[in-house]
Amino acid sequence: MAFVDSNVFGLSLSHRLFNKTVLIVGGGEVAYTRLQKLVPTKCKIHLVSPKLHPKIIEDYGELIKSKILHTQRNFDLEDFDLNTEGNNNLNVITPDLFESLSPEEITERCENITFDEWSLVLICIDDPGLSLKFYQYGTLKFPNVPLNICDKPKLCPVYFGAVAKIGGPNGIDCMISSNGKAPRFAALLKKDIEKRYLELDVEGSCNKIETLRNLLKKEEIVEKFKGNIIPVRMKFLIYVTDAFDLFNCQKLDCIKLEKLFIDVYINKSDELPLPKDLVQNFSI
Amino acid sequence: MAFVDSNVFGLSLSHRLFNKTVLIVGGGEVAYTRLQKLVPTKCKIHLVSPKLHPKIIEDYGELIKSKILHTQRNFDLEDFDLNTEGNNNLNVITPDLFESLSPEEITERCENITFDEWSLVLICIDDPGLSLKFYQYGTLKFPNVPLNICDKPKLCPVYFGAVAKIGGPNGIDCMISSNGKAPRFAALLKKDIEKRYLELDVEGSCNKIETLRNLLKKEEIVEKFKGNIIPVRMKFLIYVTDAFDLFNCQKLDCIKLEKLFIDVYINKSDELPLPKDLVQNFSI
Repeated sequence: MAFVDSNVFGLSLSHRLFNKTVLIVGGGEVAYTRLQKLVPTKCKIHLVSPKLHPKIIEDYGELIKSKILHTQRNFDLEDFDLNTEGNNNLNVITPDLFESLSPEEITERCENITFDEWSLVLICIDDPGLSLKFYQYGTLKFPNVPLNICDKPKLCPVYFGAVAKIGGPNGIDCMISSNGKAPRFAALLKKDIEKRYLELDVEGSCNKIETLRNLLKKEEIVEKFKGNIIPVRMKFLIYVTDAFDLFNCQKLDCIKLEKLFIDVYINKSDELPLPKDLVQNFSI
Repeated sequence: MAFVDSNVFGLSLSHRLFNKTVLIVGGGEVAYTRLQKLVPTKCKIHLVSPKLHPKIIEDYGELIKSKILHTQRNFDLEDFDLNTEGNNNLNVITPDLFESLSPEEITERCENITFDEWSLVLICIDDPGLSLKFYQYGTLKFPNVPLNICDKPKLCPVYFGAVAKIGGPNGIDCMISSNGKAPRFAALLKKDIEKRYLELDVEGSCNKIETLRNLLKKEEIVEKFKGNIIPVRMKFLIYVTDAFDLFNCQKLDCIKLEKLFIDVYINKSDELPLPKDLVQNFSI
């Protein structure tokens, strides 16, 4: 069993679950916190539980009527079978078949792909014996599907870290993982990070950086530039954002900075100012 | 295709890859950074690349001779077939079969499990056309296996965030994900977090918290306590670590705190001090 001590490091990854199917066993408080993380990913959710926590009904009652498939009874081993709709044969591919397809046919197949297994299984019930049973059966049935059993961090092939939200609920996720060494310490760090960056203008900064990047991608600039513009643009963006630093990117004067880029790299009529002069002269 | 805009949120998870198999296509600078993340997880690595970056040879040359399987040529679609050793039939399970097994037999099967697919596929080559081809073929062949194609964040079902290391290379991982909105902003945040917590004694703090937790788990304490000790222990640990806060947990006087726990919750001869008094009187 993937029973691993905390000296073996975990690998942190961010998952796109759009269109994929996630199984949640249980409808209590833990299932509620899982839903908070899963619903924004726009995955398909199957939830199996005889009862639902009032908070689930309050926040996700409408979704459960329309989008979340809720089976209102105790979970059974047979429920591990994911009955995929559509034609599974679409997924059967060989190198020869692949090479014989046109680019359009490949794209079409990729767009109509059937995810024929759970992409994630979350056991959120308050019964260690049953949890272990579901874990063992699930692991034997599909060894590669990531499982999480609440309250059993050492057993889980995937686990949730403490997630600090920087810049509010729609801001940047910052997942803190202590590899199971000290969850309380991760919780303190989470709280401290959220407090420290309370004033950080995440939305404003990200928008400004994106705007500047898009301005420098304009066709007229790319055309006038001799050679490969990508590394030069990246270097410029790094220089500018490093100069403004984390707390001042919302002040970027994108129009003036676009002009600076043209003057320095296309017209060669100017040179890059020192970081402190950049902040002083190219802020809004 | 799982082509998702940045308004759909990713789900951050930490993966245990111990005993699982990861495919890396490419042997350049990106592959090197992936190895830095993967080797500490003790996963099995298959690396396919005609050449290896000098840094890979320097840092992982010995591992490549012994543990990392290196195929020294260009990657081919056929290389997507993972030839698993051992008996795949071990993985075939049904509810009836499962129920007929003894607990020992179940444990044995779980321990001898065959991970019959890649657990993660990382395409790290500098050729957008080939990358797309490998992505499409891989996605069609095994839709549920997480793939990452470097330089194509929007295409990847899993992606790497900027990871701040707090407390040095063996410390706590802090993965920052902007959902692709502003990688430069995530990079600034990473740098700032590493700087801010430079002085944080992660190892000392985690060790002290673990020591205290273990002291409170001693049989003689559990026996003397009337009722379910778990929530009380958790409440006490939260109260103590909150009082000491992130920057002072390395000062916990575990022996005195153990005595306090006994006095308050077992002997009922004392009460919990206010947070500031706790820090003043229970520090080393």
